[in-house]
Amino acid sequence: MHTISQYQDFFITYLKNQSINKEPKNLYEPIDYILHLGGKRMRPVLTLMASEVFDTDYQVALPAAMAVEVFHNFSLVHDDIMDDAPLRRGKETVHEKWNINTGILSGDAMLILAYQYFEQYEPIIFRDLAKLFSKTALEVCEGQQLDVDFEERNDVTVADYLKMIEYKTAVLVAAAMKMGAIVAKTSEKEANLIYDFGLNLGLAFQLQDDFLDAFGNPETFGKQVGGDIIENKKTYLYIKALEFSSPDKASELQQLFSVTLEDNKAKIITAKAIFNESGASNATQEAIEMYTYKAFQTLDKMDLNTDKKNILRAFGENLMGRKV
Amino acid sequence: MHTISQYQDFFITYLKNQSINKEPKNLYEPIDYILHLGGKRMRPVLTLMASEVFDTDYQVALPAAMAVEVFHNFSLVHDDIMDDAPLRRGKETVHEKWNINTGILSGDAMLILAYQYFEQYEPIIFRDLAKLFSKTALEVCEGQQLDVDFEERNDVTVADYLKMIEYKTAVLVAAAMKMGAIVAKTSEKEANLIYDFGLNLGLAFQLQDDFLDAFGNPETFGKQVGGDIIENKKTYLYIKALEFSSPDKASELQQLFSVTLEDNKAKIITAKAIFNESGASNATQEAIEMYTYKAFQTLDKMDLNTDKKNILRAFGENLMGRKV
Repeated sequence: MHTISQYQDFFITYLKNQSINKEPKNLYEPIDYILHLGGKRMRPVLTLMASEVFDTDYQVALPAAMAVEVFHNFSLVHDDIMDDAPLRRGKETVHEKWNINTGILSGDAMLILAYQYFEQYEPIIFRDLAKLFSKTALEVCEGQQLDVDFEERNDVTVADYLKMIEYKTAVLVAAAMKMGAIVAKTSEKEANLIYDFGLNLGLAFQLQDDFLDAFGNPETFGKQVGGDIIENKKTYLYIKALEFSSPDKASELQQLFSVTLEDNKAKIITAKAIFNESGASNATQEAIEMYTYKAFQTLDKMDLNTDKKNILRAFGENLMGRKV
Repeated sequence: MHTISQYQDFFITYLKNQSINKEPKNLYEPIDYILHLGGKRMRPVLTLMASEVFDTDYQVALPAAMAVEVFHNFSLVHDDIMDDAPLRRGKETVHEKWNINTGILSGDAMLILAYQYFEQYEPIIFRDLAKLFSKTALEVCEGQQLDVDFEERNDVTVADYLKMIEYKTAVLVAAAMKMGAIVAKTSEKEANLIYDFGLNLGLAFQLQDDFLDAFGNPETFGKQVGGDIIENKKTYLYIKALEFSSPDKASELQQLFSVTLEDNKAKIITAKAIFNESGASNATQEAIEMYTYKAFQTLDKMDLNTDKKNILRAFGENLMGRKV
């Protein structure tokens, strides 16, 4: 086994050696651009780590890890068009730097390129990877659609919200880990357990991302703090605050989340106060702990030695221990 | 073997029995809509026909045929966004009836759904189909990019143009036929020959489509006659006319294809006259005949009985014998 930063280095070295920038260059240059914008490479790292947890050299898992990262970046390119986002990791988004048509077409090509990385495996592994990938990719599309649908709805429940973040975020984390298990040819049982570990960790991660979006330290969070409040996003914090508040406070919050303002300072302060006073902040932190705990419980069921379990647990703790 | 209209019926019955309209409905309704808009279903028919040419019941080929049709419709949904097209088969395009974001996301889901149809085959067939599919799908993206690039270029050669229509149109016709060969587990040699048959027929078909766009009968052509001239498309007719014309005529044509007009009547008449007088129309018809002949030559190399060859030849003649 290696450290997380070693897996990152292995993956980045592999990525740099891929010759992505082919002809026609207007199709492949944007792909090369987005893939080299940086980021923590969390998903491919999980694929490499999972393969070694199941006693298989990380090098065997590199093409599968690459497929996961290419798919993740495909979804960023298309989501950024849909969200009309100007920036991604502090740089221009693909549709801003080129145009919307380029963003659509280069994104399409990335989705296909992701599948092509599985061709480096034998037929049965290829089929298992591609099947898991298709199921996951379709769920990610469904999650994105639910997210879009929720913007127009005022009756989103906690269950609806959890389904949305499960599909939009958690299934890809889970699948990234299961792909490591598949290339390691481990048992179906262990592969499904590591999928569950990833799924619960992914849910905890997204809930924490929502929490930090409101309460994170602007110095360390990396995104605009209060962004979800500005955009009237119905996150776990918001839904719980509505549930816990008096009718008066609830309608104040609904009113607050129905307007688009120039200056959002007061709106952010008020929303955060309601989140805290209603108990929604505490409920969110409890949910984060609950899903992290569920992930660690899955580890106990796995047929792994203590060292391996500790490495996965440490990854989870590291991920969830992000500074608030 | 069956007739073309029987294969169409078999495919349409299969398509009707697919339960496409799932949740979230804003994602799947547009997919259901575009897949049921109609059309000749030429590509899936070719997959079914090819499987029976190689002595395998068409029913075995139905999921592969469906993958081809779903992919073709994916490309229509995304191309229609890029071309800002309001109508498709006389009905509203997906991004017109819903919106651009829905067009992007439903299209993405279709690309994934297409891969999922291959899961109905055993691992080796699955891998062969998915590999051919990925290669073809990426070429279609490259062809679409070349088509976009050509709009800005004034130095497009006949070779450039042929490469573009090969990728954008012909490879999918070829792959549709080879998929029939793959599910029939025929030899690599025969599978590649039927691919070549489809590729040349696809080129002839696209060149004829370009020719009919200018010289077709408005009563029977189905699209707006002169559409390519109105949009200043650099088709085979245009490139050949530039090549064959005197410098004066050539610059008249270039001038004509650099403007966007309200009333295109005179422009269409002038362009068609130059196409005819320069010999470009004859050259295009010769190219159509040449590619059709090349397709039929491929048949001669195949290890098939005369009846089978005659059926494939009849399909080609039927396709190319569309009324002018």
